[in-house]
Amino acid sequence: MTVRFGLLGAGRIGKVHAKAIAGNAQARLVAVADAFEQAASSLAADYGCEIRSIDEIEKASDIDAVVICTPTDTHADLIERFARAGKAIFCEKPIDLDLSRVKACLNVVSETNAVLMVGFNRRFDPHFAAVRKAVDDGAVGDVEMVTIISRDPGAPPAEYITRSGGIFRDMTIHDFDMARFLLGEEPVAVTAHASVLVDRKIGELGDYDSVSVILSTASGRQCLISNSRRATYGYDQRIEVHGSKGLVAAENQRAVSIEIANGQGYTRPPLHDFFMTRYTEAYANEIAAFIETIAKGTRASPSGEDGLAALALADAALRSVKEGRTITL
Amino acid sequence: MTVRFGLLGAGRIGKVHAKAIAGNAQARLVAVADAFEQAASSLAADYGCEIRSIDEIEKASDIDAVVICTPTDTHADLIERFARAGKAIFCEKPIDLDLSRVKACLNVVSETNAVLMVGFNRRFDPHFAAVRKAVDDGAVGDVEMVTIISRDPGAPPAEYITRSGGIFRDMTIHDFDMARFLLGEEPVAVTAHASVLVDRKIGELGDYDSVSVILSTASGRQCLISNSRRATYGYDQRIEVHGSKGLVAAENQRAVSIEIANGQGYTRPPLHDFFMTRYTEAYANEIAAFIETIAKGTRASPSGEDGLAALALADAALRSVKEGRTITL
Amino acid sequence: MTVRFGLLGAGRIGKVHAKAIAGNAQARLVAVADAFEQAASSLAADYGCEIRSIDEIEKASDIDAVVICTPTDTHADLIERFARAGKAIFCEKPIDLDLSRVKACLNVVSETNAVLMVGFNRRFDPHFAAVRKAVDDGAVGDVEMVTIISRDPGAPPAEYITRSGGIFRDMTIHDFDMARFLLGEEPVAVTAHASVLVDRKIGELGDYDSVSVILSTASGRQCLISNSRRATYGYDQRIEVHGSKGLVAAENQRAVSIEIANGQGYTRPPLHDFFMTRYTEAYANEIAAFIETIAKGTRASPSGEDGLAALALADAALRSVKEGRTITL
Amino acid sequence: MTVRFGLLGAGRIGKVHAKAIAGNAQARLVAVADAFEQAASSLAADYGCEIRSIDEIEKASDIDAVVICTPTDTHADLIERFARAGKAIFCEKPIDLDLSRVKACLNVVSETNAVLMVGFNRRFDPHFAAVRKAVDDGAVGDVEMVTIISRDPGAPPAEYITRSGGIFRDMTIHDFDMARFLLGEEPVAVTAHASVLVDRKIGELGDYDSVSVILSTASGRQCLISNSRRATYGYDQRIEVHGSKGLVAAENQRAVSIEIANGQGYTRPPLHDFFMTRYTEAYANEIAAFIETIAKGTRASPSGEDGLAALALADAALRSVKEGRTITL
Repeated sequence: MTVRFGLLGAGRIGKVHAKAIAGNAQARLVAVADAFEQAASSLAADYGCEIRSIDEIEKASDIDAVVICTPTDTHADLIERFARAGKAIFCEKPIDLDLSRVKACLNVVSETNAVLMVGFNRRFDPHFAAVRKAVDDGAVGDVEMVTIISRDPGAPPAEYITRSGGIFRDMTIHDFDMARFLLGEEPVAVTAHASVLVDRKIGELGDYDSVSVILSTASGRQCLISNSRRATYGYDQRIEVHGSKGLVAAENQRAVSIEIANGQGYTRPPLHDFFMTRYTEAYANEIAAFIETIAKGTRASPSGEDGLAALALADAALRSVKEGRTITL
Repeated sequence: MTVRFGLLGAGRIGKVHAKAIAGNAQARLVAVADAFEQAASSLAADYGCEIRSIDEIEKASDIDAVVICTPTDTHADLIERFARAGKAIFCEKPIDLDLSRVKACLNVVSETNAVLMVGFNRRFDPHFAAVRKAVDDGAVGDVEMVTIISRDPGAPPAEYITRSGGIFRDMTIHDFDMARFLLGEEPVAVTAHASVLVDRKIGELGDYDSVSVILSTASGRQCLISNSRRATYGYDQRIEVHGSKGLVAAENQRAVSIEIANGQGYTRPPLHDFFMTRYTEAYANEIAAFIETIAKGTRASPSGEDGLAALALADAALRSVKEGRTITL
Repeated sequence: MTVRFGLLGAGRIGKVHAKAIAGNAQARLVAVADAFEQAASSLAADYGCEIRSIDEIEKASDIDAVVICTPTDTHADLIERFARAGKAIFCEKPIDLDLSRVKACLNVVSETNAVLMVGFNRRFDPHFAAVRKAVDDGAVGDVEMVTIISRDPGAPPAEYITRSGGIFRDMTIHDFDMARFLLGEEPVAVTAHASVLVDRKIGELGDYDSVSVILSTASGRQCLISNSRRATYGYDQRIEVHGSKGLVAAENQRAVSIEIANGQGYTRPPLHDFFMTRYTEAYANEIAAFIETIAKGTRASPSGEDGLAALALADAALRSVKEGRTITL
Repeated sequence: MTVRFGLLGAGRIGKVHAKAIAGNAQARLVAVADAFEQAASSLAADYGCEIRSIDEIEKASDIDAVVICTPTDTHADLIERFARAGKAIFCEKPIDLDLSRVKACLNVVSETNAVLMVGFNRRFDPHFAAVRKAVDDGAVGDVEMVTIISRDPGAPPAEYITRSGGIFRDMTIHDFDMARFLLGEEPVAVTAHASVLVDRKIGELGDYDSVSVILSTASGRQCLISNSRRATYGYDQRIEVHGSKGLVAAENQRAVSIEIANGQGYTRPPLHDFFMTRYTEAYANEIAAFIETIAKGTRASPSGEDGLAALALADAALRSVKEGRTITL
């Protein structure tokens, strides 16, 4: 079976998915849609696909699935539209920045029995996936504490911050999903501290750039999350799971593994400086998983509900900061 | 100048200090006191010192300084007594489990102008000291986030738990001191989550064995602390400081640095399994610093006030758990 | 410019190159030839290219370059044929197992002014390439000593050994090339010790499975090579360059970077267990470099002369073992 | 039982042993002898022992054992003298630079049934000892290949070189001993390449500063040794043993285990810069082993014969360089 794709959005992340689809023997990229004609035609040329409007893709009988990479505020509408059109849907996170809008959208997905997979790419990183596998295999016994350190190489521009929904909904949301992926239980309490240490402008926009979060579950499992919008040494992405029998940790990744030693010491290169190079394999594996979900008719994972749950944690974290107390879910 | 020592308490930690004093060219161990005659005589034989009563040591003109290694509930009384006797005092942490008792004791120290150093040994660990030095040297720029992961190889026996004051006052207190040592600002807010995951008996005694803490300072610096009473892989003691220019981290320590590779992978030995072997150098450096403080007449550090501040954080953390909210100091 | 390729040989390594060509925007795979019809048609189907005979490819006006992945004993003949046909040639190592045959072949290449690149893929490994770059950038000062540890996960089957030319011409030859790549001077003396420790059958076939080699250059630079046909922990590929100012080393590679800690210690997974997964990026970069060589008209590197020089070292190493003395080149 | 010690030689290494004896509960330092009065009196003051002449120590009834730390050319005479005087003898390596002198000396040791231990301190390094233990425990199966990289932080002064016997007898001799310690079989063939890359003066004195050696045993086990008189990044001391079941390696050691990350990368401090700090534990363990040998009456190890065997390898390596061939032992 070959899954025939329509791609909505030919921007940075759209290109990543186009490449993953093109490189997958079970998939074919049929058409791309983008409001910016040049973006669409450039991508169409690179991957030998057609340019169509969103309407045309919606009605196309030669398209089985769509990948939604348009701006965030269009996600929920598009999901509903393509769910009704009977297409399988892969949507970049988040579904929406508003929790009730997400819920309404997921109702449509549910009513239409649509296949919806949400783009929490990190679950498909081979290293993080291996951490999860080790946990599933019992390597650490009962999970007790998850520690996630996640720092970006640099802060995004102000206009991005404005549209992002804030650090919890934009950045920490990945870690909330990873926490849920690894804790083995749902978090029931959230406490967050947040401040502006990296860039004063971020504070002026009402957002934070440095946050610490504790999650805990009903049985007392705990998760610590540390986020910063800036790490001079690259894209810092560490995860560890501590349990009754031991610990499993994923190491940071760099493009080149050499070490230079001299009188100043032993130096390895900085980490990846960009999420796309850091998560190249994750993006390819993610689309492969989506294709497999469609081909085998299995349940999509991460699902729309996973997207909802991570957003609820982000909202709770923000409330915790504002109210200076632990928020119970 | 040779500093002449009286040692109060010949137990496990007393022996550690006796050895450090004996091995220090600027110090001499004159006498030991212990309620258990056999403990005193064994230590006296090993290090060639006299056995005296606490009274005799208090009045001795041939003793300049005392090291207090007696049970916790005697610390404050002994500090006051020896402060009045004009001896320099090194006291194992904590001064007392009760904050007001500590304050009263420090008043006496202050009135008598006594030299008092409190036994936060980790400040003298060469690796943690090197982290602090790197921070002081500006290697990470402005400090933003401190992460401390501190896990014991195994839970202490129930009778220890009962007398310990609870995990925050007994175990996390070291991390609170380390946080203060590295943050460069006083914490003003504390949030803690705590649970019983390791040993149900600890819960029955009203204590916790697994805790997560966030501290924050006035300018928004944050510190994350993760504690567990059990780590199957040894004594897990990691510290890192993230700042505007970079990161500095102290690696875990093991007795033997070999690696065995075979079909199962690459395996290094577990970490130290005991705090005394992990902190051998720290204990020696600590007493050396105390001797230097006396010899040079410099200010004792960590001071009684450092002991007080760490205890206040421990109390606040416990309140945070009980009340489910952030405690402002 | 698009380079149009004919692929000679559709076996294991042929497929690797087909994939690299297919994934390269500057190249197109036009045709494949293979004596085994099924191999050719399977590869043709996967990459959408034609099946042609070697004769047809030789005469084809729509083919600019060939990749020779046929059995070793056909390499020299094919190189000569396609050199005369005016095609650019990429040939898997070795050109031939016989030094004089290689020389005769390179004469034809030289007379015809053909572009010939030889498949020493390791030069294109990003980690080894970064080592070379660090050396070129002066990071280690004057090169003094190169150490290469190169061990295969497991010994090849007897029939492979028989055709391989022996361990020096088959396996160590990669390290001889790497030594030349990194020493910055030609080796002038070779000493080797060799024995059969892994598999008695290899000895019965007149070959060795464990070898140690020292190379030295006119100015006294030295290179140590350690080879084994078996490493239980995976594909062990380490290179380091020691110089007047410091050291640069490439670390071993594994598919997944996690670490599991428990009472037995800290364990990372074994290394890659297959040269194709270990050198995935190297193979892609290698073909990209060949395409760039053709597109820009630059000198091919590694060249036929590089292939000759490595083979001469292999022959010298074998003589050193047989005669128990250092061979001067 | 307390072993009563006389120390011959109060120089740098004499002080190391004095400290080890003083810190060992089973030993007592009774007297020190040194031709330089000030060296003797300084050491005597530090450790509270007497100053005696060598004659006095030889005849002393209150001395059980001597530690010989005098200049190399006195070692053999002193060993013979104290063997005849019935003292247990620890002698710094080498016994003598001349093989026949060593043999004559060992004859006297043998005739007098004296206890003689030779100072190959590295056997007592906890990391190298752990490598040997792993080998003995079967962790790597049958030993096949040993790799030793041993580089000094800096070249010694010319006057030292002159008296040293050359790099093979002075520096590589430690690695020859380590090779014998780990190979599990005696080397029967030696090939060495040597050159002057670090310091031209060393060459003018007829010595080398950079050497590569291959040893092999009767069954074909191999050992590679790489030595340089200069490593900008500190005291480089790596050992690994590869066998039929796996690999065991000892990592390099540094005083402080921190890592600083910034835009230039991840940097750990240089290694120890001095053999005394690198081998602090080894020296203490070495004297403890000597004391235990005397106390328990076990066979001294490393023995005089171990000293002889390592020197024979050094002589063979030098001949290999001079004659450009493999030397069979």
